[in-house]
Amino acid sequence: MVDLLIRSADVLQLRDETARILTDHDIAVRGKRIEMIAPSGSIDPSQAKSVIEAAGQLAMPGFINTHAHVPMVLWRGMGEDVNIESWFNDIIWHLEANLEPEDVYWGMQLGILEMIEAGVTAVNDHYWHMEYAARAVEKAGTRALLGQAMFGANGMSQIDETAAFAARWEGAAGGRIRTILAPHAPYTCDDDFLRASAKKAERIGSGIHIHVAETREQTRASLARRGQTPIAVLQDCGIFNVPTVLAHAVGAAPSDLEILADLRTPVGIAHCPKTYAKLAMGYSNLVEWRALGIAIGLGTDGAVSNNTLDLWEAMRLTALGQKQLTGDAEQLTIPQALTIATAESARVYGQPHDLGDLAPGKLADIILVDLSEAHHFPLNSVSASLVYNARAGDVRTVICDGQVIMREREHLTLDKDEISANIAPRMERLRQRENAGVIQTYKP
Amino acid sequence: MVDLLIRSADVLQLRDETARILTDHDIAVRGKRIEMIAPSGSIDPSQAKSVIEAAGQLAMPGFINTHAHVPMVLWRGMGEDVNIESWFNDIIWHLEANLEPEDVYWGMQLGILEMIEAGVTAVNDHYWHMEYAARAVEKAGTRALLGQAMFGANGMSQIDETAAFAARWEGAAGGRIRTILAPHAPYTCDDDFLRASAKKAERIGSGIHIHVAETREQTRASLARRGQTPIAVLQDCGIFNVPTVLAHAVGAAPSDLEILADLRTPVGIAHCPKTYAKLAMGYSNLVEWRALGIAIGLGTDGAVSNNTLDLWEAMRLTALGQKQLTGDAEQLTIPQALTIATAESARVYGQPHDLGDLAPGKLADIILVDLSEAHHFPLNSVSASLVYNARAGDVRTVICDGQVIMREREHLTLDKDEISANIAPRMERLRQRENAGVIQTYKP
Repeated sequence: MVDLLIRSADVLQLRDETARILTDHDIAVRGKRIEMIAPSGSIDPSQAKSVIEAAGQLAMPGFINTHAHVPMVLWRGMGEDVNIESWFNDIIWHLEANLEPEDVYWGMQLGILEMIEAGVTAVNDHYWHMEYAARAVEKAGTRALLGQAMFGANGMSQIDETAAFAARWEGAAGGRIRTILAPHAPYTCDDDFLRASAKKAERIGSGIHIHVAETREQTRASLARRGQTPIAVLQDCGIFNVPTVLAHAVGAAPSDLEILADLRTPVGIAHCPKTYAKLAMGYSNLVEWRALGIAIGLGTDGAVSNNTLDLWEAMRLTALGQKQLTGDAEQLTIPQALTIATAESARVYGQPHDLGDLAPGKLADIILVDLSEAHHFPLNSVSASLVYNARAGDVRTVICDGQVIMREREHLTLDKDEISANIAPRMERLRQRENAGVIQTYKP
Repeated sequence: MVDLLIRSADVLQLRDETARILTDHDIAVRGKRIEMIAPSGSIDPSQAKSVIEAAGQLAMPGFINTHAHVPMVLWRGMGEDVNIESWFNDIIWHLEANLEPEDVYWGMQLGILEMIEAGVTAVNDHYWHMEYAARAVEKAGTRALLGQAMFGANGMSQIDETAAFAARWEGAAGGRIRTILAPHAPYTCDDDFLRASAKKAERIGSGIHIHVAETREQTRASLARRGQTPIAVLQDCGIFNVPTVLAHAVGAAPSDLEILADLRTPVGIAHCPKTYAKLAMGYSNLVEWRALGIAIGLGTDGAVSNNTLDLWEAMRLTALGQKQLTGDAEQLTIPQALTIATAESARVYGQPHDLGDLAPGKLADIILVDLSEAHHFPLNSVSASLVYNARAGDVRTVICDGQVIMREREHLTLDKDEISANIAPRMERLRQRENAGVIQTYKP
């Protein structure tokens, strides 16, 4: 017996940056993992505990959001048409002074609900009150890599506290939850703090998730102040002794690429192009980075800059943005965009052997996408349609860790009405910007 | 009695580039036009022949696609990851050699179906066999400005032929169809041909829809060959003596902006940012153009470059692209993006007094958008959600010329199954690139 049989789907597989479609195949899932993928009819449906008929739907790996602050969905639409300094100092760090732990619980559920509807099954989240985020992930049935954010100014004791959080939740929810240490950025954490964070991460076997070189201006300011790029600072502080997810690195200098290309520990870049365009941060040249073997994952950042948590948008903007940036439409091809969205995002997320591919032995994080609507017809190229035509609304069914969590757009784990009802009364307080507090000042 | 009453909608209005929302208002439609917009309850529903309950939905003007080649949807996904020379010479102009008149009839229906589902109610279309396109528009119930494409090499007789088409269809379908002359581009039509086209347009009271300065390279090549920019060529040939829609003009030189800003006849630019990024054509600086009073409309170009005919995408990429291009996130604000998508696109389309705004006296081209899904919640800013969160799938109901053409996503004019069944058997022939013919060579 298998636990779940997905029948007659077309299955997307990327191999060596080439996309192929296994037409009309069955996928058998046992427990958390894919057991077999075979031409339709090879697996007897009476031998499956549960069957999904997927004829005409495309099966692909669930998207992995490699950098987000999910509960910020609470404030979406509130940081508009401003540059990054104003975005932080006039808006975000006032709003976040209002944040209470239960806000994170409900905001995290809301953001995960939106992500499930867009086919996102895993998120690398960097935020506050992460016990509450973890409880939301437990309930949602999705996968998360959770890091409790730290500002150096809040003191060294945070490192032990967030390491304790990390230890408590590592491997929770049957392995769906993993943890990571999350110092905010080199401009908000001094070298001693970064060094201590890196040492702690080494000691407990954790990785680091950190913002770095978000803009070229940050790199320029760091060079002017101390003669080192922010990425060189991270290296000196030992951050790269552990697996690291770098959020953004848009301002990376050529010397930084050499640092990153030479590392022995895994390091990945989370690329969030909608946020970069919206905050006029520039784009990094992913073509150069990928040529050096540096892994790129898709991310959304928070919804106050990105407005949505939709990785179809991020994938599309990654391809479009690189063509525009390089002035060469042959760059960042469709199979490359799909590879970034799947296997490469899994590398950045730290589970390259488990996620980002549909194959026997992989964890069963599978989404079924309907490509039959008018905006895909005629379906001359499935892979082109995925990168340039598909919308979140085309995702019909979402499976994570072998469990169906959305079926034909019906949620099986989260309750939108309950979430909305719990968030609505919080919003008057959460929208205040005039109170006394700010949680930080942006001055890189 | 009114013909149609839309009850309890929230109504988007742009005034002086400021967005306001009239909360909980009724819209009364008599014949083709909006008669009244008033707070909910002001209009007795028993006095309406037809009622749409729209509580919780947002009413806004239907999108206007100011530059497209709609029937090219037939080949979507077939021009991927290539630069513009190869796109034209290796792909498009082979494929188009296969085109038969009935292909246009069905391709036009398919593209309009997709546009209706995305809330697009009007299109300025530049293509072949336009009698067949016109018949599709008649059936669809949407609005179109149709121009039969001309290459100079096909001879002067085309001008009379396309003018005859224009005369036959101008004002057809109760005014929903208008016509325009459509010489392809200055690099495919010589000066004599352009001059004759302009004179014919003046004589018959038509405008001109033409591609120009699609890339900076085209401007450079024109300057090298003849010491004039492509836009200066159009001016010399008298094109700007009639209302003109310029497709792209991405390669416009500063001197071209002066030409365009000084014109007395209306000239508008169709801006198709997804195509520009995808073909690595660069972006024009709309901020500068708009400061000179030059009207910008949204366009999709054809679906072999743009892949979809979705103006939500075009609006979003317009805002994101300008922030990225200028390096200033305060540029191309949300109200400006919405103004471009509505009133300014109506200017480019040549119906500034009829379209692009919901107000008494305007033509009733109205879409109802559902902003209640998770990707809009909490709805902290309606206008931000329209520009950065909304998807084509959020459009519920579409009204054009006072007639409901899609109601709660059910089509009332076009039949997707019929369209698909008619297109499928054509595709083997249409996909051939190995036949003898090409319709043109790209060598600007």
